[in-house]
Amino acid sequence: MATRSLFLLPGDGIGPEAMAEVRKIIAFMNDKEAAGFSTDEGLVGGSAYDAHGQAISDGDMDKAMAADAVLFGAVGGPKWDAVPYEMRPEAGLLRLRKDMELFANLRPAICYPALANSSSLKQDVIEGLDILIVRELTGGVYFGEPKEIIDLGNGQKRGIDTQVYDTYEIDRISAVAFELARTRRNEVCSMEKRNVMKSGVLWNEVVTATHKARFSDVKLSHMLADAGGMQLVRWPKQFDVIVTDNLFGDMLSDIAAMLTGSLGMLPSASLGAPDAKTGKRKALYEPVHGSAPDIAGQGIANPIAMIASFAMCLRYSFNMVAEADRLEAAIAAVLDKGLRTGDIMSDGCQKITTAEMGDAILAAY
Amino acid sequence: MATRSLFLLPGDGIGPEAMAEVRKIIAFMNDKEAAGFSTDEGLVGGSAYDAHGQAISDGDMDKAMAADAVLFGAVGGPKWDAVPYEMRPEAGLLRLRKDMELFANLRPAICYPALANSSSLKQDVIEGLDILIVRELTGGVYFGEPKEIIDLGNGQKRGIDTQVYDTYEIDRISAVAFELARTRRNEVCSMEKRNVMKSGVLWNEVVTATHKARFSDVKLSHMLADAGGMQLVRWPKQFDVIVTDNLFGDMLSDIAAMLTGSLGMLPSASLGAPDAKTGKRKALYEPVHGSAPDIAGQGIANPIAMIASFAMCLRYSFNMVAEADRLEAAIAAVLDKGLRTGDIMSDGCQKITTAEMGDAILAAY
Ligand SMILES: CC(C)[C@H](C(=O)O)[C@@H](O)C(=O)O
Ligand SMILES: CC(C)[C@H](C(=O)O)[C@@H](O)C(=O)O
Repeated sequence: MATRSLFLLPGDGIGPEAMAEVRKIIAFMNDKEAAGFSTDEGLVGGSAYDAHGQAISDGDMDKAMAADAVLFGAVGGPKWDAVPYEMRPEAGLLRLRKDMELFANLRPAICYPALANSSSLKQDVIEGLDILIVRELTGGVYFGEPKEIIDLGNGQKRGIDTQVYDTYEIDRISAVAFELARTRRNEVCSMEKRNVMKSGVLWNEVVTATHKARFSDVKLSHMLADAGGMQLVRWPKQFDVIVTDNLFGDMLSDIAAMLTGSLGMLPSASLGAPDAKTGKRKALYEPVHGSAPDIAGQGIANPIAMIASFAMCLRYSFNMVAEADRLEAAIAAVLDKGLRTGDIMSDGCQKITTAEMGDAILAAY
Repeated sequence: MATRSLFLLPGDGIGPEAMAEVRKIIAFMNDKEAAGFSTDEGLVGGSAYDAHGQAISDGDMDKAMAADAVLFGAVGGPKWDAVPYEMRPEAGLLRLRKDMELFANLRPAICYPALANSSSLKQDVIEGLDILIVRELTGGVYFGEPKEIIDLGNGQKRGIDTQVYDTYEIDRISAVAFELARTRRNEVCSMEKRNVMKSGVLWNEVVTATHKARFSDVKLSHMLADAGGMQLVRWPKQFDVIVTDNLFGDMLSDIAAMLTGSLGMLPSASLGAPDAKTGKRKALYEPVHGSAPDIAGQGIANPIAMIASFAMCLRYSFNMVAEADRLEAAIAAVLDKGLRTGDIMSDGCQKITTAEMGDAILAAY
């Protein structure tokens, strides 16, 4: 069978520890299931900066572009706070997203039944929660030009960022949201601030047009992004798929993740457009959580988000649906058994290490 | 005694109903306490558009500029969804903020003890919550130029908004936050996205410098805005004062408001710089909630946010601290008695109308 190429970028902080658990699963699938994964590994973020003064090297970028899928850990930490803006750890992630044209960021916010009680929200508000945030990832204020600080003299500076969206960018991300809604509860809510932003006016207009032209079977609603944030906190189960821009998506998906009380549990997928010839999409999979430098290197980090990101990789990059289902079920089973890393520990459960969690999930797979 | 001039802009939806209850309180204070309020009234939002094709007329703008304080209800509704962008209801509010230079938006998020159970968050997470969001209100992506939609041909358009902050704008809003923190628990958390936005880099730099130069007695921390949103949901009591820009402030203050479960209860104040001669600040007071067109005209809206906004007006524009305290205590007392409008109704409480709520608060004052 054809080789499935994975490029691993563990990054900084708890990234490498979490990635080590995914390596175990890959090795198991190669051994026992002849899955045919080939892996290569590179540096990103602060560790790349330390090695060669850049948040990702051109060589590693080439490997990321060539791989079937990239698995990404996390980047950043106080060690690199004073690094110049262009070389800061996040620049590596942003370059991967931009150069690979990963415009569609899928962030499921689900509440694992075993953890329904660990949220700051009331149990009935989040129990059974299953929403999907589709965030635009290569446009908006993250990449628009001008983006600069100008010295105005007299001790005054001016900081400028530019929010830009073109019709085609809004069309393609909303198409992804509509397509995914069809595989779920068939509802999309689009969020922007059309009452103050011209890009929001265009966003609203294009989503509406794309819906009318190609997806009128899906139920579409619109919400202002501030009201959307409120509604996520008030009653998140009202949503199925939420589609929104890069910056609102950053805020709203983090809030949605925190609602579930399972921040250390949530995966994400970032996808490009299907290749015209092969139909393959470039893809990068990463946990929603950050590099957590405060607990790095102690072997206590929660590897579940990273493992769940690999499950998304099986599903979206390799169409290995049965294996993805099995891996996700294994995560739920381990939680049901009461096994917990420190971040999700609660009374009556058993506290285990990063490696023990990886082993337990593999045993349940 | 000198006349205290108030300019009332009830606006659309439930705005006029809520404002009617404030009128009762003003009349009472004039009658019984010789408070010397003079009032005038104008149109804003959709009702202004209906009357003269603009979201606020020049005449009413002049009156707003001349008044000691503006009391603002709410604007907007589906009736005006198709109105051209420049004349949409929100344009009236944005013009007031910009032309009056109301750069400092104070949004307290407090949890009334009687309502601690009505939040979607667990009671221990929000009980006793008392945080203050200080939002920059006249800059950022709300007003930066270019702000436009360009036709690129071939069915493609480009929507552009510009996020701009100058040193002096960041300095003056952070000074407001530090000053207010001194009257509270003496802690400020500044939120931006310096990892992706140059305006965020400048924001962080200026807040740090202003702190060092003039407010080093206040405890200052920094958080990325997305992490800040998560922390608000996880454990909001970790914050005292949060200072942030216009757009992040819009999102974060709405989320904070929703946390309390008391959205219909929360006031805001928007203040300008003190006049060089008189020391007076231009000021506008408005509830955080919107115009709620679905329940408008039925006499069931909750007037508490509007009344609490008037209490902020007493405090900040007229230094009537005792009266402000008394009015806020009256609100709490009425809630303690179990009187509720429909939006905050719960078992064992008595459901009352907008007018009955206004009367009850006045009786408890
Ligand atoms: C690390 C940072 C640049 C990134 C972002 O802002 O997109 C992160 O917050 C995320 O959501 O993936
Ligand atoms: C009505 C709208 C323009 C306004 C804003 O976005 O500032 C509102 O959401 C607010 O927070 O006061």
